[in-house]
Amino acid sequence: MNRMEFDVIVVGGGHAGCEAALASARLGKKTAMFTMYLDNIAMMSCNPSIGGPGKSHLVAEIDVLGGEIGRHTDRYNLQLKHLNTSKGPAARITRGQADKYWYRVKMKEIIENTPGLEVIQETIDEIITEDGHVTGVISSLGIEYKAKSVVLATGTFLKAKVVIGDVVYPAGRQGEGSAEELSESLLKNGIDLERYQTATPPRIDKRTVDFSKLKEMHGEENPNFFSLFTKKEKNRTVPTWLTHTTEKTIDVARELLHFSPIVTGVIKTHGPRHCPSLDRKVLNFPDKKDHQIFLEMESMESNELYVNGLTTAMPPFAQEKMMRTIAGLENAEIMRYGYAVEYDYAPAYQLYPSLENKKVRNLYFAGQINGTSGYEEAATQGFMAGVNAARKVDKKDPVIIDRSEAYIGVLIDDIIHKKTPEPYRVLPSRAEYRLTLRFDNAFMRLLDKSREIGIISEDKIEYLENCIKNIDLEVQRLKQESVPLSKANELLEKKGEKQRVVKGVTVSDILKFKNVSYEDLAYITDIQEFPDFVKNQIETIIKYEVFIDRERSQIEKFKKLESLKIPEDFDFSEIKGVSNIARHGMEEVQPISIGEATRISGVTGHDIALLIAHIERMKKDQ
Amino acid sequence: MNRMEFDVIVVGGGHAGCEAALASARLGKKTAMFTMYLDNIAMMSCNPSIGGPGKSHLVAEIDVLGGEIGRHTDRYNLQLKHLNTSKGPAARITRGQADKYWYRVKMKEIIENTPGLEVIQETIDEIITEDGHVTGVISSLGIEYKAKSVVLATGTFLKAKVVIGDVVYPAGRQGEGSAEELSESLLKNGIDLERYQTATPPRIDKRTVDFSKLKEMHGEENPNFFSLFTKKEKNRTVPTWLTHTTEKTIDVARELLHFSPIVTGVIKTHGPRHCPSLDRKVLNFPDKKDHQIFLEMESMESNELYVNGLTTAMPPFAQEKMMRTIAGLENAEIMRYGYAVEYDYAPAYQLYPSLENKKVRNLYFAGQINGTSGYEEAATQGFMAGVNAARKVDKKDPVIIDRSEAYIGVLIDDIIHKKTPEPYRVLPSRAEYRLTLRFDNAFMRLLDKSREIGIISEDKIEYLENCIKNIDLEVQRLKQESVPLSKANELLEKKGEKQRVVKGVTVSDILKFKNVSYEDLAYITDIQEFPDFVKNQIETIIKYEVFIDRERSQIEKFKKLESLKIPEDFDFSEIKGVSNIARHGMEEVQPISIGEATRISGVTGHDIALLIAHIERMKKDQ
Repeated sequence: MNRMEFDVIVVGGGHAGCEAALASARLGKKTAMFTMYLDNIAMMSCNPSIGGPGKSHLVAEIDVLGGEIGRHTDRYNLQLKHLNTSKGPAARITRGQADKYWYRVKMKEIIENTPGLEVIQETIDEIITEDGHVTGVISSLGIEYKAKSVVLATGTFLKAKVVIGDVVYPAGRQGEGSAEELSESLLKNGIDLERYQTATPPRIDKRTVDFSKLKEMHGEENPNFFSLFTKKEKNRTVPTWLTHTTEKTIDVARELLHFSPIVTGVIKTHGPRHCPSLDRKVLNFPDKKDHQIFLEMESMESNELYVNGLTTAMPPFAQEKMMRTIAGLENAEIMRYGYAVEYDYAPAYQLYPSLENKKVRNLYFAGQINGTSGYEEAATQGFMAGVNAARKVDKKDPVIIDRSEAYIGVLIDDIIHKKTPEPYRVLPSRAEYRLTLRFDNAFMRLLDKSREIGIISEDKIEYLENCIKNIDLEVQRLKQESVPLSKANELLEKKGEKQRVVKGVTVSDILKFKNVSYEDLAYITDIQEFPDFVKNQIETIIKYEVFIDRERSQIEKFKKLESLKIPEDFDFSEIKGVSNIARHGMEEVQPISIGEATRISGVTGHDIALLIAHIERMKKDQ
Repeated sequence: MNRMEFDVIVVGGGHAGCEAALASARLGKKTAMFTMYLDNIAMMSCNPSIGGPGKSHLVAEIDVLGGEIGRHTDRYNLQLKHLNTSKGPAARITRGQADKYWYRVKMKEIIENTPGLEVIQETIDEIITEDGHVTGVISSLGIEYKAKSVVLATGTFLKAKVVIGDVVYPAGRQGEGSAEELSESLLKNGIDLERYQTATPPRIDKRTVDFSKLKEMHGEENPNFFSLFTKKEKNRTVPTWLTHTTEKTIDVARELLHFSPIVTGVIKTHGPRHCPSLDRKVLNFPDKKDHQIFLEMESMESNELYVNGLTTAMPPFAQEKMMRTIAGLENAEIMRYGYAVEYDYAPAYQLYPSLENKKVRNLYFAGQINGTSGYEEAATQGFMAGVNAARKVDKKDPVIIDRSEAYIGVLIDDIIHKKTPEPYRVLPSRAEYRLTLRFDNAFMRLLDKSREIGIISEDKIEYLENCIKNIDLEVQRLKQESVPLSKANELLEKKGEKQRVVKGVTVSDILKFKNVSYEDLAYITDIQEFPDFVKNQIETIIKYEVFIDRERSQIEKFKKLESLKIPEDFDFSEIKGVSNIARHGMEEVQPISIGEATRISGVTGHDIALLIAHIERMKKDQ
C-alpha cells in the first residue's frame, strides 16, 4: 500500500469525522482523515455544550463502544451537571459546557497521535467509483487517494453559504471556506441532495456584561461523568449565567422582522426546529416575551460568551438593537455576529442501517450530511460509520444497533426512515423504550456490541462484565434473602417512610421504598463495596422492576412486528385506502418489514393496519 | 461616542494589527481591531520563529517602547538561543521558536482583556474619506464604523490567491478567506497597489520522521530574553533538528521544475529574496546540493513539524517526491502541502515616516501591506503606526525614530524610500551603525522615546533610567580609578592574558582585555551588584569604546548631510549627468534632504555628488 492508498478515508474533521477516523484506525485500518483546515479539527461551531436529553445517552453509548466524545468532554469541560436527579431514572442525564479551545486542540492531538491514522489538509472534490463501489477520492489539488471504504462527514461545508441579513457569501463557517465541488460528484453518482440551514447566535465580550443582573449557575465538583472510565478528582465548576428576553426585545425583533432573512426569503431552507432563531420564535410564539437566554463561556482562554437563545441571522444593527433590550446585556459588545449557514445534505433514506449508501457501496455518510443536527448526533453516526467502514474492509457484517438497544439505534433507524422537514435532533420522545435506554445503563446494554466491535480493551470489557455479573448476582440475592419484620420496619421508620411491612419480605422489597438506598440496606443485610455506578444499577433495577418488565414485554411484541416481512417487489401503490403521504413515503423508503414501515414519516397506525391486511390477503391468494 | 465610533480603528489581527491595536488602546484611545477570523489572531502563518539578525533588534526595541511581541515570545516559546556570543557585540542576538498555538491563543486573551480595545470579527470592504482624510471604514456586512485614525494591517489578505502547482484559489492563508473588496476602495482613493508573493513549506507528521538521522539542537535554559522585563526561572529547551537536501533532492527538483508555478508562470510576482523556495534555489544556485533543512515544532500540542528550507508551491506529488530524498524524511507524511500566496500591497513610498499615507491623511499602513516580510517587521510597523495613529487623535506630533537610533528607523526609512523588487526584510547590512544599534542596548537608545510615547509605566522607566545612570557613573569611575601595576598584572596572569601593563593604568584599561569581565574586576577594585544587563553594558562600552566612538562621529557627519535641505519645488529632471534610474527614483520620492536622497533605491554616491553640486550652484545663482 503506498502513501496515497488507504483502507478507510474519512472526509471531514468535525465531530463525525473525528469519531469515524479514530474508530477506523483503532480497528487497525490504515486511515486518512481529510480536513479543509487542520487548525479547526473538532471545532464546536455553535454552542459549547455537550449532553442533555437523548444526547447524553448517545455520548454514554458510544463511549462504551469506544467513542471519544464522552471521555474528551469529561477531560476538557468548564462544567458538568447531573440533571433531573429528582425525576425517574429515564430522565436523569448529564449535560456539560466544553472548553471549546481545549476540546479542539486536544482532539487534534489525539487524532495526530493515533497509530495508523494520518490527517491531511486537503479539500475533497470528487469520489471515485467503479461498478457501484467507491474506490477513492480526488482532492482539489488533483491528487487521487485510494481507499476501500470512504466516510463522508462534510458537516455544513457542501456548497455552503453564510447568511447575515441580506449578505450571502460562500463559507461553511464564518471565516472559513466552502466545499464547492463534491456535491456535483455525488449528484453524478445518483445521490440525492437537498438543502438545510442552521444558525448561531452572536458572541459577546464578557467584560461588557452586567453580571449583577444575571443568575449564576455552577456545575458540580463530582458530576456523573459521560464515561465510566473517567477518573477525575474534582471537576471544574465554571458558571453559566441566565437572563431573559424582555417585552422590548420582542418589540424590537417584531419591528425589524422584515429584515430577517427568513422573512425576506434570503433563507428558504429549514433550520433545526429545536434551536429556533429568535426571529422564528417571534413568528411562531408571538405572545411569549421572556425567552431564556443563557450566557456560556467558550473557553477559559477567551472572553467570548455564547448567547444561547439569541440565535439569529438578522442584520448586525438588528442584532445590536435586540441585545440592548436584554437584562445585563444593555452594553454588551458583539465580537462575532450571529449568522446562518445553508448547505447541501444527502437525505439519509439513501442509506442502509450500517450508514452505507444504497447506490454507492462502501461509501458511508455521517453527521450533518445526513440531515442531522448536534455534535452528539454527528459523533454517534461518525463512530458507527467508522466502525462499519472498517468492518467492510475486512468483509465483516456491519454492526447494527436496534432501537430497543440504544439511542444510537433510535437515531439511525429514524434518519434512514423518517424524512423530517428540518435537521434531525435526537429526543427522548423519539425512543419507545425510555426506561430501558437509560443514561446510566449504557454499559449494561451495549457490552456485547462493544466486544463485537473490539475497540474497548479486553481488560475494560472484563471489568464491566464483572460489574454486570455482580449486579445480577446481587439483585438475585436481595430478591431471595428475607429479613425479619422488626428490623425492616425500624429501617423504614429511620428513613422517614410512612408505610410498614407486615408479612415476611425480602431485602429487595425494602429497597423498593423511595427513600431507601442500597447503602441503607447495611442495617438489615451485608452489603458490598461496589463502585457507585454498580450500586446505582442495583437500586434502579429493583426499584423500577415493574415498569422495566412492562417495557421489556413491549419490546418483545415489537420485535415480532419488526420481523413480519414485507414480500420482495411488493407494490406499495396497490394498498387501498392509505394516505398519499404514507404511500409516497413507503414507495420512497421501500421498507422490508412492518416494523420498518411503522417508522416512516407520515405513516399512521391506520396505514399499517391496511398494509398488514394487504399482505395477509396476498399470502392467502398464493 | 457610540458603539460604532472609535478613536482608532485597526484593520487586521496579525502581528502588525495586534501591536497597533494594543499600542493605541494602551495610549487611552478607544480602539477597535477588525479581524476576518477571531480564532486566528496573531497566527504565525509561516515559520514559528521570532528573532535572528536585525529582527531581534526590532523586537527588543519595540519592547522598550511598549510592544508586545518580545515579552509574548519570552512567555510562549519552545526554545530561545543567544547566538553569535563569540562574535562582537553587534552580532549577538536572540532567536527563538514560538509555540504557535499558545502564542496565538494567549495574544487573543491579551487583546481581549486590554481596556479600551474591542475586537470585532468583520471583513472591511471600504475606507470612508472626507477632504483627503479617512473618517472610518465600511464592513462587508454594510456597517459604517467611524474613527479619527485608521491603521491598515491586512497582511497577505488583499485580493489574495493561494497557489499550489497549477491550482489557484482566493485565500490569504490556506483554509481561510480573502479580502476581495478593500483594494478597490484604496485604488479609488488614489493609493497605488502592486502584487507580491510569499510562500511556506509543507508541514509533516513528527511520527514519520527518522530522528536518528538528524542533528538535534536545543535552546538554553537561561537565554537572553527579548524583553528586559521578563522574569523567568528556566526557559524551555525543546529541540529543533537539522538535516540537508541531497543530490537526489536537487535532481528531483530539477526534473520537476517545469511544474513549479514560478516556472510555469502561474506565479508572476516576487517573493522574499531571503526565504527563497527550493525551486528558486535550484534555479539560482544550480551547483549547491546540500541546503540546510531545519525541522521545527509548531506547538507542544501538535505533531506538525515545519520543514524550514523546503518552501515551495510545487504540486503535491513534487513536494512528496522531494521529501523522500532528504535524510530522515524518507517516510515523512505531509499534513499540509507547501503553498504560495499572492496579494496586493501598497508600496510604502506613499507614506510619511510616521507611516501615515501622504494622500489620505489619518490613514496608516503597517506590515505586509507595506511590502515587507516577517513577523518582527510587521509588529514594529504595527506598533509605530498604532502609536502615531493614537497621537494623531490627540493632535500630537508623530514619534519618528531615526536610522541612527534604532533598526525601527532603518526599517521605516528604508521602506518609505527604497523600492525593493521583493518583500522587504530587515538585515544588519541595511543598518549603517551596527555597533551602536545593538540588541543588548535597545533600552539605552530608546528610553527617551519610550517616555515620550508613554506606554511603559513610569516605574519601569525610572528603573531603566537608574540603570543607565549607574552605567554612566560606573564607566566614569572605572576610567578614573587607577590600580597598582602588580595587582593588575596578577589578574591578567590569572585570566590567561599574554600581555602585561607597564605604566600606571586605570581599572577600565584592564577591563579592555578580552578575557577580563566586569566581575573579575573584584580582584582590583570594589564592584557592584548590578543586574546582568547592566554589567554587560559597562563591559561593552569600555571594551568597544574606540569602535563605538568612531561610529558616533560618522553619525554626526551623517546628521549634517541629512540636514542639508533640498529646496522646495526642486526640479530633479534638471540635474545633469545622473542616471535615469536615480532621476526617476528622486522624482518619485521627492526627497527633502540629501540624506533622504541617499537612501533612494538606485541613487549612487556619484548621483549624490551631482545633486549637491547642483544645489550649491542654485544657491550661488540666487
